[in-house]
Amino acid sequence: MTQEKTPLVKEIPPKKDDLSAWYTAVCIKAELVSYSPVRGCVVLRPAGFGMWERLQAELDARFKATGHENAYFPLLIPESLLKKEAEHVEGFAPEVAWVTHGGNEKLTERLAIRPTSEVIIGVMYAEWLQSYRDLPILINQWANVMRWEKATRPFLRTLEFLWQEGHTAHASHTESVEEVHRMLEVYREVAEDAAGVPVVAGEKSASERFAGALQTFSIEALMPDGKALQCGTSHDLGQNFSKTYDISFAAEDQTTQFAWTTSWGMSWRMLGALIMTHGDDRGLRIPPKLAPTQLVVIPIVKGADTVVLEAARALTATLRKAGFRVKLDESDKRPGNKFAEWEMRGVPLRIELGAHDLEAGVVTVVRRDLEKGEEGAKTIVPLDALVARASEFLDLLGSNLYAQARHFLDRHTVATAERSAFEQSCRERDGFIDIVWCDRPECEARVKANTSATTRVLRPLLPTDDGARCVACGEPGRVRALFAQSY
Amino acid sequence: MTQEKTPLVKEIPPKKDDLSAWYTAVCIKAELVSYSPVRGCVVLRPAGFGMWERLQAELDARFKATGHENAYFPLLIPESLLKKEAEHVEGFAPEVAWVTHGGNEKLTERLAIRPTSEVIIGVMYAEWLQSYRDLPILINQWANVMRWEKATRPFLRTLEFLWQEGHTAHASHTESVEEVHRMLEVYREVAEDAAGVPVVAGEKSASERFAGALQTFSIEALMPDGKALQCGTSHDLGQNFSKTYDISFAAEDQTTQFAWTTSWGMSWRMLGALIMTHGDDRGLRIPPKLAPTQLVVIPIVKGADTVVLEAARALTATLRKAGFRVKLDESDKRPGNKFAEWEMRGVPLRIELGAHDLEAGVVTVVRRDLEKGEEGAKTIVPLDALVARASEFLDLLGSNLYAQARHFLDRHTVATAERSAFEQSCRERDGFIDIVWCDRPECEARVKANTSATTRVLRPLLPTDDGARCVACGEPGRVRALFAQSY
Repeated sequence: MTQEKTPLVKEIPPKKDDLSAWYTAVCIKAELVSYSPVRGCVVLRPAGFGMWERLQAELDARFKATGHENAYFPLLIPESLLKKEAEHVEGFAPEVAWVTHGGNEKLTERLAIRPTSEVIIGVMYAEWLQSYRDLPILINQWANVMRWEKATRPFLRTLEFLWQEGHTAHASHTESVEEVHRMLEVYREVAEDAAGVPVVAGEKSASERFAGALQTFSIEALMPDGKALQCGTSHDLGQNFSKTYDISFAAEDQTTQFAWTTSWGMSWRMLGALIMTHGDDRGLRIPPKLAPTQLVVIPIVKGADTVVLEAARALTATLRKAGFRVKLDESDKRPGNKFAEWEMRGVPLRIELGAHDLEAGVVTVVRRDLEKGEEGAKTIVPLDALVARASEFLDLLGSNLYAQARHFLDRHTVATAERSAFEQSCRERDGFIDIVWCDRPECEARVKANTSATTRVLRPLLPTDDGARCVACGEPGRVRALFAQSY
Repeated sequence: MTQEKTPLVKEIPPKKDDLSAWYTAVCIKAELVSYSPVRGCVVLRPAGFGMWERLQAELDARFKATGHENAYFPLLIPESLLKKEAEHVEGFAPEVAWVTHGGNEKLTERLAIRPTSEVIIGVMYAEWLQSYRDLPILINQWANVMRWEKATRPFLRTLEFLWQEGHTAHASHTESVEEVHRMLEVYREVAEDAAGVPVVAGEKSASERFAGALQTFSIEALMPDGKALQCGTSHDLGQNFSKTYDISFAAEDQTTQFAWTTSWGMSWRMLGALIMTHGDDRGLRIPPKLAPTQLVVIPIVKGADTVVLEAARALTATLRKAGFRVKLDESDKRPGNKFAEWEMRGVPLRIELGAHDLEAGVVTVVRRDLEKGEEGAKTIVPLDALVARASEFLDLLGSNLYAQARHFLDRHTVATAERSAFEQSCRERDGFIDIVWCDRPECEARVKANTSATTRVLRPLLPTDDGARCVACGEPGRVRALFAQSY
């Protein structure tokens, strides 16, 4: 009668053998995303959106604490406006989706679906900004954006994605540069403290810079396959956009001046970093701060026994009241199947409650971050101590996930002064390859052609680098660069 | 050197003389919105977005408390999918914006920017839903949508707008109908309790029904010009969408059945109702629950005196710590100008602190809902009682705004049994005109042609209506209908 349904993914391949296949399987099987009938666009399902909501809350609180307010700007940008900033449009035009018809009429001018909002926001700031008293303008937008990409992968690269974009205007370059670094630090903190993903922060090279920016900074995480993943960027736009879109103001000395602007963004890509960093062969492992469900309560019920079920319900209510995000699995599946399912979904703590436990006044708490049989993986906890112990376990679990990832990042950040070792490490994805570098685009292009690696971030030379030459080409060294292959 | 800036609106016309001019002026001058360079699209500025964030929080908490989870579906819908449900596409096709090019390539199939998401969500539910164990599916989406309208007005009708759309699937019609009414009640509660806007709730007539629904229900507010404003809708989609998009499941009895689906939405239009309902000739009046700023502290500083300023800062910190949303106006404007500005912005309570107040250990609290000179408009409050009194004033203010609006709605809901009186009331916008009605589309069309009024909601006949005939046409009466002109 009805067409056959798409079968659900039943197994995930081992993470080590094929990270890419493992990643896709986990995203689908843990019900984070579904592919949609629109090429390159995914659906963010409740389990995935729940993580995004938590990430939003962590970021939004920090944006507000640093004086920013949210606003919303139009989705569509007239082609003529987009074309005003030459470098910017050159960077984005190949990736723009165009609206040409509204209702049954052909539009007189094509409208771009925003790939980012510098242009439309620049036009509005030009209208709003009158005097130095109006500065700084500190606005953030939560929005969907669209970039018409060829290859796509859930969270990492999709035609449409969700993100936030901050756009600020300042009276001086000193102030705008401070803002750029302040927000980069917010990203580092959220990546490391909330998502448990350690990152390196630094400047991007000229070829990796945002189209139209003076300087771009980013945070970069290292995935288990040795490839880097850019997780957030912060741009010093200088006066480029303010001169193009006339974001000017009457200064205190009565002169008319152009504002100094910044923009900075983090997208749901951060969740891709989290999934790849923490997941294992049993599925997701979600850090407690971003877990939509922190605790799952599983009643071990035999037959028609309702006492355990009632106790599990009461326990769930108690835990919710104490502020935890809790689910109770009352389904008629077998306990073993429930365990596997909630492990796949990455819920940090599992609480098992059976008839014997109930009599003894205890529950069994199982930590998702530890291997079966590992010390501390399973703990019998008296019911009246559960709230306190659950908090403690969540903290330990969060720290442990971060520590494991930090250990991996440190072990895979290698400094070298040998060109052949450098190129081999780049080719073999040893991780971040830290070298003295000349900062020349042509050198980076050659390394990329030879090894597929590019600079991820640039950092100042160390005192001991005095007089050192570029490890990649032998020209004078100007900076330290972390090279890596990247997503 | 730079182009001349668009001048800000300096004055607002009296609300009584021209509601439309007053409304637009308030939206612009209170910096809720700005017009954008994209026809029919507005920018929601921080003061406007702050209200939207509060409204979102009120709705989202209630959605979650009733078991719903958030998710995100693609912005673009392939034309072939949109066309599957005939009635639905007929309703929306004239209003759809079409994407025809991605990057530099022409697409093989046009993509619609979602006017609403029943179609794309229906396709996904068909994939996800396997068995009765998967039901109900209770999902909400916060999203931007686009409808290519001719005339536009901030909040009330714009090409792009922000809203939420709930989409649920159930095993039985009884359950889905319960959901439709549950969410309509959530809308009523949020409109009345949070936005302070009294509404009538009921079913829509056939001609006002959502394209593809069995039944549509709505809440309707009454604006000061006697026109109704639809503020939220809840649709019983029956099995129409599930049959078109194959949302089927294996039932407990092993048969394959189609799910019963619903959808329901509220947009930023609710804020338009709030603005028109509560505003006065001095500007906005925002109910405390939706006010981004509940209290503004204004230090009355003479010369270079820093003592008052320091005290105002300390007071602001104390009030924030107590949980209020507070702004401190430290600008160098004159107090009178500050008062007028914050009145325009609709902040519920103003707290004035001068040197004499400080010595006496008091502040002056001014309520935005009362006229100058009215009893209770201005109160001297001891500093140590301020937190408690401010809470109390906010509650009083919230109740008072609602009571004023309720009084207006009740006074402008008139029942009549005379056809000539009915038509005159419709024409003269007396408000909701409550009549016994035949429930025939041709009767409604004739009333609309004669008076510009349509049915807003239908309600059951009263016991006393037994045998009564339609006031508009004399045919047998089937329901009670509230007629009004509408936005």
